[in-house]
Amino acid sequence: MSAPPGVRAARGLRLAHFFDPASIAIVGASEEGMYPAGILKNLLSCGYAGRLFPVNPKRSEIFGLACYPTLAALPERPDLILVIVPRQAVLGVVEEAERLGVPAAVVISAGFAESDAEGKQLEAALRARLQESRIAVIGPNCAGFASLANAVIATRLSAPARAGGVGFVSASGALMMAMQGLFADAGLGLSRIVSLGNQVDVSLTDVLEFLVDDPQTQVIGAFIEGMDDGRRFARVAARAHAAGKPLVLLKSGRSQAGQAAAATHTAALATSQRVFEAVCRQAGAILVDDIAELTATLHACVAWRQRMPAGRRVALVTQSGGMGSLAADWASAEGLALPPLPPALQEQTQGVLAPNGAPALKGVPALGNPADVRGAGALGQVAADLLQLFLESPAYDAALLLLAKSAVAPRELATAQALAQLAATAPKPFALVWVGQRAPQLPTDSAEPLRLLAEASIPLFSQPRDALRTLARLAAWGEQRVPAPQDSAPPPLHAGSGARRQLAYAEIVELLARVDIAPIAALEAADAEGAATAARQLGLPVALKGISARHSHKSDAGLVRVGLASAEAVRAVAGGWLADPELGVKGLLVQRMAPPGVEVLLGVETDAQFGPLLVAGPGGVLVELLNQTALRPLPLSPADAEAMLGETALARLLGGLRGAPAADAGALTALMGSLGRLAARTPALRSLDMNPVIVHAQGLSIVDLRVEWEEEG
Amino acid sequence: MSAPPGVRAARGLRLAHFFDPASIAIVGASEEGMYPAGILKNLLSCGYAGRLFPVNPKRSEIFGLACYPTLAALPERPDLILVIVPRQAVLGVVEEAERLGVPAAVVISAGFAESDAEGKQLEAALRARLQESRIAVIGPNCAGFASLANAVIATRLSAPARAGGVGFVSASGALMMAMQGLFADAGLGLSRIVSLGNQVDVSLTDVLEFLVDDPQTQVIGAFIEGMDDGRRFARVAARAHAAGKPLVLLKSGRSQAGQAAAATHTAALATSQRVFEAVCRQAGAILVDDIAELTATLHACVAWRQRMPAGRRVALVTQSGGMGSLAADWASAEGLALPPLPPALQEQTQGVLAPNGAPALKGVPALGNPADVRGAGALGQVAADLLQLFLESPAYDAALLLLAKSAVAPRELATAQALAQLAATAPKPFALVWVGQRAPQLPTDSAEPLRLLAEASIPLFSQPRDALRTLARLAAWGEQRVPAPQDSAPPPLHAGSGARRQLAYAEIVELLARVDIAPIAALEAADAEGAATAARQLGLPVALKGISARHSHKSDAGLVRVGLASAEAVRAVAGGWLADPELGVKGLLVQRMAPPGVEVLLGVETDAQFGPLLVAGPGGVLVELLNQTALRPLPLSPADAEAMLGETALARLLGGLRGAPAADAGALTALMGSLGRLAARTPALRSLDMNPVIVHAQGLSIVDLRVEWEEEG
Repeated sequence: MSAPPGVRAARGLRLAHFFDPASIAIVGASEEGMYPAGILKNLLSCGYAGRLFPVNPKRSEIFGLACYPTLAALPERPDLILVIVPRQAVLGVVEEAERLGVPAAVVISAGFAESDAEGKQLEAALRARLQESRIAVIGPNCAGFASLANAVIATRLSAPARAGGVGFVSASGALMMAMQGLFADAGLGLSRIVSLGNQVDVSLTDVLEFLVDDPQTQVIGAFIEGMDDGRRFARVAARAHAAGKPLVLLKSGRSQAGQAAAATHTAALATSQRVFEAVCRQAGAILVDDIAELTATLHACVAWRQRMPAGRRVALVTQSGGMGSLAADWASAEGLALPPLPPALQEQTQGVLAPNGAPALKGVPALGNPADVRGAGALGQVAADLLQLFLESPAYDAALLLLAKSAVAPRELATAQALAQLAATAPKPFALVWVGQRAPQLPTDSAEPLRLLAEASIPLFSQPRDALRTLARLAAWGEQRVPAPQDSAPPPLHAGSGARRQLAYAEIVELLARVDIAPIAALEAADAEGAATAARQLGLPVALKGISARHSHKSDAGLVRVGLASAEAVRAVAGGWLADPELGVKGLLVQRMAPPGVEVLLGVETDAQFGPLLVAGPGGVLVELLNQTALRPLPLSPADAEAMLGETALARLLGGLRGAPAADAGALTALMGSLGRLAARTPALRSLDMNPVIVHAQGLSIVDLRVEWEEEG
Repeated sequence: MSAPPGVRAARGLRLAHFFDPASIAIVGASEEGMYPAGILKNLLSCGYAGRLFPVNPKRSEIFGLACYPTLAALPERPDLILVIVPRQAVLGVVEEAERLGVPAAVVISAGFAESDAEGKQLEAALRARLQESRIAVIGPNCAGFASLANAVIATRLSAPARAGGVGFVSASGALMMAMQGLFADAGLGLSRIVSLGNQVDVSLTDVLEFLVDDPQTQVIGAFIEGMDDGRRFARVAARAHAAGKPLVLLKSGRSQAGQAAAATHTAALATSQRVFEAVCRQAGAILVDDIAELTATLHACVAWRQRMPAGRRVALVTQSGGMGSLAADWASAEGLALPPLPPALQEQTQGVLAPNGAPALKGVPALGNPADVRGAGALGQVAADLLQLFLESPAYDAALLLLAKSAVAPRELATAQALAQLAATAPKPFALVWVGQRAPQLPTDSAEPLRLLAEASIPLFSQPRDALRTLARLAAWGEQRVPAPQDSAPPPLHAGSGARRQLAYAEIVELLARVDIAPIAALEAADAEGAATAARQLGLPVALKGISARHSHKSDAGLVRVGLASAEAVRAVAGGWLADPELGVKGLLVQRMAPPGVEVLLGVETDAQFGPLLVAGPGGVLVELLNQTALRPLPLSPADAEAMLGETALARLLGGLRGAPAADAGALTALMGSLGRLAARTPALRSLDMNPVIVHAQGLSIVDLRVEWEEEG
């Protein structure tokens, strides 16, 4: 469906034509209609400095501009065309533009794959045509884009847009425009905003890559529905982190992925949403949960860009004890620490709260964290002075001021002014939680304090949770060590078009031997007598498994018997199975019994977008009870393997719960590393399940194995 | 610390004096100072119709009102006094008021227990004085209260307050005033708001009880820090539910409770926050997580009071596909269902979206749920008409309209008007998620659509999560079957002043026999020979336990051996223990071995506030791994016991996981019922742990038991 990666990358570089065009033609321009008139009006009124050419055979002039019948009739080759014509005409316009050498087109026209069968055909034709084309196309069915610094407003915007450092890309056109309104409300300046539409050519990852390299963009936001090229996305995200540009993502469609989850085997547990979360965590992208959170996180990124939280130690400075304890709850829930005040800071803050031991403020108790500074400590310059002391203390990485009062009272002007001054020089990040009236109602009320705070770009929250969650997310971003993205792209993903099959036991053994992994000693046998002989050879007791094409989950079909203590017992069970045609048993596997230990589920899952991932979690009956696995994209570092144990109950289980002996975590992480290497170089591997691996006090036993395989089709 | 329940209840009835006083004296009134002047100004300017008496020996007149030197000098006995004097003078004023027969006082003066040692003494004196007094006192250290319908504004309010059906009580004065500002912003009308202060007399539960009975109050909100009388609170909450008055609670201090949790035994797992959540769930109170959520939930309760969601089936009507899928994620996360459109509704909606098959709207695809109605379907009367069809369909209990566009565009006036009309007649609840610009910026922008929506009391959210969470909470409230509160108060809680001790095995057996519970067969023995004899009597193999005052957790000290297969083995182990003075073994318990089964932790925990609760969860090693217990206040119904299994993994474990045989859930719930009855009638029982109870295919074995006991001191 999509162009080969090479061509795509080249297109990524050519996105500059969209954002800095010397001339723009609007094909289908008109004096009426939301887009046909709206975009032209925007370009005229916002001060676009390049040349504008309306194209419409039915007009000679639009809004005072000369109008041309076709692209070919233009006095020059435009750098960019905006296409707002009936869907049937789109392909023709794009072809004409390409012939003329136009490098970039935005197709706003809708009615394509999102619409009906005819639209799907039209989109397929356009997509096919673009495979061999050099013109870059955004859309169709998109809401356009805007580049703010140079006033290229090639979309409809409801609110005046301010130029700034936030680049935003959206899978939904309506949401891009609505978010622009939210950004305007929050006083957030934008660099570029892009609505992707049906991504017939320019993709989410193309735009993200452009924004990572774009000097005008300091912070990147995205609303995502799907992925065009997961592994390229992961590399771009890692490059954003390396460049110090926070990438904040909101992704919809989590629940459908969740519904696909079921049963106990690796494939089902490794749902797409969990894969996406694992990829984002590894690549240092910030995943948020909802729309207001996206805006707030972008705002905090802009405000704190030069002073992101260096750790998780937060000072809570509060006007109200109630708000303080509420905020402490959320700090704890978000994994943030609330260290007490060092003695020097305690003394300094007392000096501010009770200067010269002023009688009115006598009896000010020592401050804790939360620091309850009461009304007088949360007003005007005093509030800013206190906050500054906390921010300058080496005990804290960030501070939060919690206010419970009207934000439109005239006396809060002084508070806002003092905080704005502090924001200009503060060495560390701070934010406000301001609970109280915000809409002016009385003649004496004033929105000026809020305006000042917005102008100073101070993150302002309505409740403690939102502030502490944002703080925690950005602290995690700062802590994240993202592996340097590799220059060379990984080999292309397996097309997934071949026939899938389960590998036979002997094939699995051979495959694992490539990375020196050996399952527990076992022998195959064709009949009951052979099984009995194998059991004696291995040493009793043994486990016996029936191999049946009909039953891929052997234990569900009753084809697993453990602890058979004599050759006779083995012969009897094997004979019984082979005599039952219902079972379809074609062969027997006799395994040595493993000593007891910690049962672990280990596996490899191949995601269609992100390639192979390692899966690890508590095994056996705990698979269902805990439903707890850690996921990692490959390659896997030893630190990753270690961390995966800690993300699940494995670390505790291996450490020895309730007096159980500790198990060999080193043997397990070594196995994880080997499995990761195997998966990275074996594209035909679709999935591999080891459930359980039994980890002993020393060493481990791989007891059950399933491998799904798919040769290139 | 607090008055006996009888006196308290009588005081609860007398709260009416606060809210409807014919006359008010302000002791410490002045022309200056936030409270001394502010409250008097409020009472004068807001139209309080009763008589007002400033009291201040240093003034003859304040704001044109005659001022009196003392309470005794007043021309009449006031119904209510507000006390704003230095802390040393408070007790004297209250005593004088009582002598004069004043029924109610609000002490705003601060500097009491929240302050310093002297303040603590002053508060203790005031509290002691009030034990024998008939005057009801709110405070000290409170911010006052307001009763809106009759303009008794005995507090500072920043925003003009609108009378309405929401009663609000707050443990924090600052937060009460700040929340009033939020309520004003949201257009929410108030009945009474109360700041509790240090609760020297009138308590949280007193005010809640008053609000439950108050005809002016339809919805109750509270910000809570602690509890004054947990079991009375639970009864009041259940009465609120029975009266159809939603009680929405925000409680701080969750994390400290969480920190107290540790280890594996029942006491540690049953943390205070978990107890409070269990009580609220059983009593039908709505617990929210943060401040904005509290406001939004109260707003929805007011808007939907006559049409609370009757179930969990929601229609998502969306302008943007992206918003729709995001909302579907949250619906799924919140346990809401998204049924597809019935054919009749599909036809009706198509009729609205494409009237007469109008060409401009041809190709409108069939609607799913989320129903993507696009721009035209989300504008003006069409949006309201569509929403109405969904609300009238028997397939849904509620609907959400999701908009992604500017809320201040002039054309949205028609949308707001149509929705306001719909709100007046809609048979079921609906809400809006409106993502987009809300602050007017251009001259053509208008805040009028937002004003109209607020006036029509339509719940308006900024992101899908908030709307769906609120919907889910109120649907749960509607589903909740709250047991009718018992008329008779439960026996007073054990004072907890006696000495605690562990019961001996024989005592436990005797205790359990009262409700026909028998632990697994066991015999006590004093020496090794006796233990060997006991083992033979019980039948081998047996478990042997050493009884030691030094080691209350026997297995941690190595004083448990299971599966001893011969009398000799029993003798040897017992002899070894008794010979080791370090172990302090004073006796032996020989137990029959239980057959395998599902291990369950069962227990009783006594909460200082809420009395005894039953605790149940997966036992054995799963206690630590899952850390999962269900809690229920007593009395326990059979349905409660059943539900507790479902709230934990117990239901699945008992059902038979991974091919394991099903276990006897009926025997377990019967045991839970017996244990509940025992706890309810045994006030000396502090805690009881059964870990594990082993549940077999038929019947169960109680294998280990600990009971903590405390006679009245």
